[in-house]
Amino acid sequence: MKTSRSVQTLLSVFLILLVTSCGSGVKKQLSSPDNSLKLTFTLTEGKATYELSKGDKVVISPSELGFILSNNDQFNDRFRVTDISEASLDETWEQPWGEDRYVRNNYNQMAVSLEEKDGLKRKMNIIFRLFDDGLGFRYEFPEQENLKEFEVMDELTGFNMPRDNMAWWIPAYRPERYEYLYRHTPLSAMDTVHTPLTIETKDGLYASIHEAALYDYGSMTICRSDSSNLKCDITPWSTGVKAYLKAPFKTPWRMVIVTDDAAKLVESRMILNLNDPSEIKDMSWIKPTKFMGIWWGMFTGDYTWAQGPKHGATTKNAIKYIDYCTQFGIPALLIEGWNYGWDGDWVGEGYKFEYTKPYPDFDIEKVCSYAASKGVNIIGHHETSGAVMNYENQIDSAFAYYQKLGVKYVKTGYVNSVLAGKELHHSQYGVRHYQKVAELAAQYHIMIDAHEPVKGTGIQRTWPNFMSREGARGQEYESITNGNPPEHEAILPFTRILSGGMDFTPGIFYIDNPNKKISSTLAKQLSYYVVIYSPIVMAADLPWHYLNQPAFKFIQDVPCDWDKTIGINAVIGDYVTIARKDRNSDNWYLGSLTDENARELTVTLSFLDEGRKYTAEIYADGDDADWQNNPLSISITTQEVTRETTLTIKLAPGGGYAARFVAL
Amino acid sequence: MKTSRSVQTLLSVFLILLVTSCGSGVKKQLSSPDNSLKLTFTLTEGKATYELSKGDKVVISPSELGFILSNNDQFNDRFRVTDISEASLDETWEQPWGEDRYVRNNYNQMAVSLEEKDGLKRKMNIIFRLFDDGLGFRYEFPEQENLKEFEVMDELTGFNMPRDNMAWWIPAYRPERYEYLYRHTPLSAMDTVHTPLTIETKDGLYASIHEAALYDYGSMTICRSDSSNLKCDITPWSTGVKAYLKAPFKTPWRMVIVTDDAAKLVESRMILNLNDPSEIKDMSWIKPTKFMGIWWGMFTGDYTWAQGPKHGATTKNAIKYIDYCTQFGIPALLIEGWNYGWDGDWVGEGYKFEYTKPYPDFDIEKVCSYAASKGVNIIGHHETSGAVMNYENQIDSAFAYYQKLGVKYVKTGYVNSVLAGKELHHSQYGVRHYQKVAELAAQYHIMIDAHEPVKGTGIQRTWPNFMSREGARGQEYESITNGNPPEHEAILPFTRILSGGMDFTPGIFYIDNPNKKISSTLAKQLSYYVVIYSPIVMAADLPWHYLNQPAFKFIQDVPCDWDKTIGINAVIGDYVTIARKDRNSDNWYLGSLTDENARELTVTLSFLDEGRKYTAEIYADGDDADWQNNPLSISITTQEVTRETTLTIKLAPGGGYAARFVAL
Repeated sequence: MKTSRSVQTLLSVFLILLVTSCGSGVKKQLSSPDNSLKLTFTLTEGKATYELSKGDKVVISPSELGFILSNNDQFNDRFRVTDISEASLDETWEQPWGEDRYVRNNYNQMAVSLEEKDGLKRKMNIIFRLFDDGLGFRYEFPEQENLKEFEVMDELTGFNMPRDNMAWWIPAYRPERYEYLYRHTPLSAMDTVHTPLTIETKDGLYASIHEAALYDYGSMTICRSDSSNLKCDITPWSTGVKAYLKAPFKTPWRMVIVTDDAAKLVESRMILNLNDPSEIKDMSWIKPTKFMGIWWGMFTGDYTWAQGPKHGATTKNAIKYIDYCTQFGIPALLIEGWNYGWDGDWVGEGYKFEYTKPYPDFDIEKVCSYAASKGVNIIGHHETSGAVMNYENQIDSAFAYYQKLGVKYVKTGYVNSVLAGKELHHSQYGVRHYQKVAELAAQYHIMIDAHEPVKGTGIQRTWPNFMSREGARGQEYESITNGNPPEHEAILPFTRILSGGMDFTPGIFYIDNPNKKISSTLAKQLSYYVVIYSPIVMAADLPWHYLNQPAFKFIQDVPCDWDKTIGINAVIGDYVTIARKDRNSDNWYLGSLTDENARELTVTLSFLDEGRKYTAEIYADGDDADWQNNPLSISITTQEVTRETTLTIKLAPGGGYAARFVAL
Repeated sequence: MKTSRSVQTLLSVFLILLVTSCGSGVKKQLSSPDNSLKLTFTLTEGKATYELSKGDKVVISPSELGFILSNNDQFNDRFRVTDISEASLDETWEQPWGEDRYVRNNYNQMAVSLEEKDGLKRKMNIIFRLFDDGLGFRYEFPEQENLKEFEVMDELTGFNMPRDNMAWWIPAYRPERYEYLYRHTPLSAMDTVHTPLTIETKDGLYASIHEAALYDYGSMTICRSDSSNLKCDITPWSTGVKAYLKAPFKTPWRMVIVTDDAAKLVESRMILNLNDPSEIKDMSWIKPTKFMGIWWGMFTGDYTWAQGPKHGATTKNAIKYIDYCTQFGIPALLIEGWNYGWDGDWVGEGYKFEYTKPYPDFDIEKVCSYAASKGVNIIGHHETSGAVMNYENQIDSAFAYYQKLGVKYVKTGYVNSVLAGKELHHSQYGVRHYQKVAELAAQYHIMIDAHEPVKGTGIQRTWPNFMSREGARGQEYESITNGNPPEHEAILPFTRILSGGMDFTPGIFYIDNPNKKISSTLAKQLSYYVVIYSPIVMAADLPWHYLNQPAFKFIQDVPCDWDKTIGINAVIGDYVTIARKDRNSDNWYLGSLTDENARELTVTLSFLDEGRKYTAEIYADGDDADWQNNPLSISITTQEVTRETTLTIKLAPGGGYAARFVAL
């Protein structure tokens, strides 16, 4: 059922008189609907710049706009303004799934038309949309005589900061793609980094720089031109070209979320608002899901992806796992390592993968029909090791094969530092590939959960079958290298997850595994289900580790589709508390987690529905809990609460807290 | 003939009394032979640090030493000093080829033995060698009970700078490896970067951070812990591990060259002194050479590597090129695209290369015997596209095949962002591979010129058949992306080339090619032969572009093996002048080049031999020369000079100057 509550108001479109007198330029301001944000566009001596402020605080000081095309062709310094038009929108639209069922899209817009003063007189437009929670802007290259096919060698868009603010960042261009620990440093100690890049300004604002609607263009990273001045750096092709374009073309939206409170970053839906409505008209087949998987065993050493004595994806094992799904009420099962290609150096030799050829010890038809008989969805798996050509050659038959078997979800994988032997995951080449997969999957009514993906840019609004991604250092790192420190999950919601749901693979209960020590308490594992959003979310541990575990009830109860999301409190990197309301009931959920330090947080449950009573089922760290020495100590209690109740949340070192509020 | 002039003096090895009283640490100073540099080693509360100063100027402020091993095992904070010993050396040794025939190796050494105070009591030594032109230091892990096989997760070595100095840098971890334009920014705007990292301090010193003797360890990049504090970051394996080690083991030398004058950086031979003498006892077969190649045509679009109507490496074309070599007196010819594997996406599908299977239109035996009959050496070619497994599987037969054909030089290529489908060129994996190739080539008496190499660290002293490398943005970039700006060649001698000879592929005469505009004047192309050192150096243009060109005589005359090298003057990124004496005659050569600005430099020829007269053959920019509008204007003159003569060097915008001083 689609509830339409959208109210669209097109306020005004008008031409303004432009200052064209000799030596002077153009300056034009735009305010956000509530007047809290101000955007100033300026054209001086042919160069366009913009600046952004919130009240009297400068967020982005004057920053460059424009491009360098091939042959050192500067497309940034000889402009005149030919037109400026304004518009506004205030609508509310409904998501098929997500963190909020209804999303308000409310902005004031200014569209600036530029043309070169002389020579080729090429045209470019810049569209600014100012929301109460931030700025989005994009470039448009209209169809024109003197700009047809062209190559972007550099995009000059700047994000200058007036001061050397602190930032949370992961480096770009590294072989593990997004999978690095966040660093928290002044901008002056920052590398070239991925977005979302989240910054705390010295005057107490939070600014997160990212992009929306990334199609057919290289992904934006952020580098520095000096200590605190930032500039975008578009991920190049192996040729060095940033993007091969053909006018008419619209770039992705460059966006900056701005809030006073770190916790409120998680409530911004600007990234979705900057994307177009769904291209998939019948969305009835697109459903969030929880799942278990033949997966963690590959990290603990119990299983292998490849054939052999420890092969994980056998018929027998799959049936055992399906039975666990049935027993636990987990509606889906991921099976990895079922197809030919894993034997040998699978990362280096991805061209060997075959997507319609199961291993001989895996009777895929039997497994799928058994799963269907039990009401369990199989989540298929396409590992490519970045050998995209090999995958694209088989992709139609691969999706058709899964569709025939009744498989509705596919986890894809791109473990490698490059795609197709040479192109970066975040290049225009990569962006095109992931998009091709999403659109083709939609034709087969298949939902995608991409690992080693291109970053999310809100395109799940337009392609809601591209549901989740990995794209950061997930819990699998607990079993490799030196693990994830406890602060990691107190950073993710304010960085990576601002780009969309993350398949973090929570729910490891065998924390004390002497070989694979996990950096959390048991209660913290539960908190992930509320704090770390994903519409496709795993109960990641080996199923038998959930037997006779009272804490597992929370994983069974917690939904993964929400009516409403509220950021309660946060100090990025220290702690975070988020509340969410179930989309399919009146129940609320709360998750809170901390870094390596114990904390006591006080939360009044004012988000609960007015006049309702709830039974709170609380999973808290035991008094003696500690991620290093006593991670399993947990206290499970119930109490009656209303929106007037104040809870004291005690978090152990490396601990967490999860609560379910069952409406009475 | 080997002239032995080495004088070795072992001054002293002694134990010193150590301050071990409660609460206090150890502090020990070392001076360079001329007392200009001071190294201070300090142990405080179990942590070791070092600092470096020149006179009263601090070059490196106190900086950390140590490691993090796997499982977050800190191997840096519980040390005590068990021994400190000192030694000195002053010897002069002879190079088989190089920038200087004789190299003085003069240092004072301090070896610090550390042991953990408690627990496993693991041992580590740090060896400091202080030269007059800089510091080298390395870690040694002696054989011991409690440290056998181990994994380095992080090396903590710092290079802290007291101020936010300006640096010239290229980013590390990028898909084009070393092939980026240098940026010149404060340290506070610096990415994680490759070495050599060259810094101009605010008190007027030049410091270049690099490493020597890189064997079986990841290459060192430099990142920042805050604005001006630097730290090493070892290039990891795809597993995240930086190095898999087994004690006993010695790390590469970390080194900092320090000079008062930028021009003097090019005279430092510390990197060679920190490497061991040659492992190849009979070096008579190792010879520098000039060469032409079936190569530039692939960039201009005249030829293809792959088979087809424009195939470059045909028998007919090779014979034509050999005839040009004979006609011009260029003793060697590179032939690329001769073997199977280039058809299709050769970068993405390197596993298709076959190293003993020539294309049908290339009669390799006929070509090689024709070349031999003309006295021309063929330079063979092994492109791998990073498919190292495929190469290693064939490498023995590939070298044997070339040896049988009389091929003594091989250019290798690793065009890709990764090796073996997943490992970085600069990882321990890559370091091992390049070393394996060098050592194996030596067995077949083959000299190596590696493109897309691991960086040079002076190992050509030990493996003098590993003669040259690309490893930076060479002239081929003039035909792709947006070219190299004229300042590029005024930066290379003070950055990339401090690590060893660079196959820059100079000598493009068809500068006005409307499709492939070159960013230099003709005289600047000549200057490269003196300024940009390589023992294997190309006359890169299509041979017929050299016909009837008087300027070509300089390329014919200039040697590529030197008796002595002198840095005359330089402002890094602006201009540079270098003089070198031929190893096989009494003639001197001088090269000077500038960035986009015209300049007039005055140089007194005091480097010339005393009492000799010379005929100077001078190739200077014409009065109206300009890299953008009039690059071919050149003035070729002769005059008689002595060491008292002062020359005025006029450099056009983007111009250069080359002179040959023929001893009379």
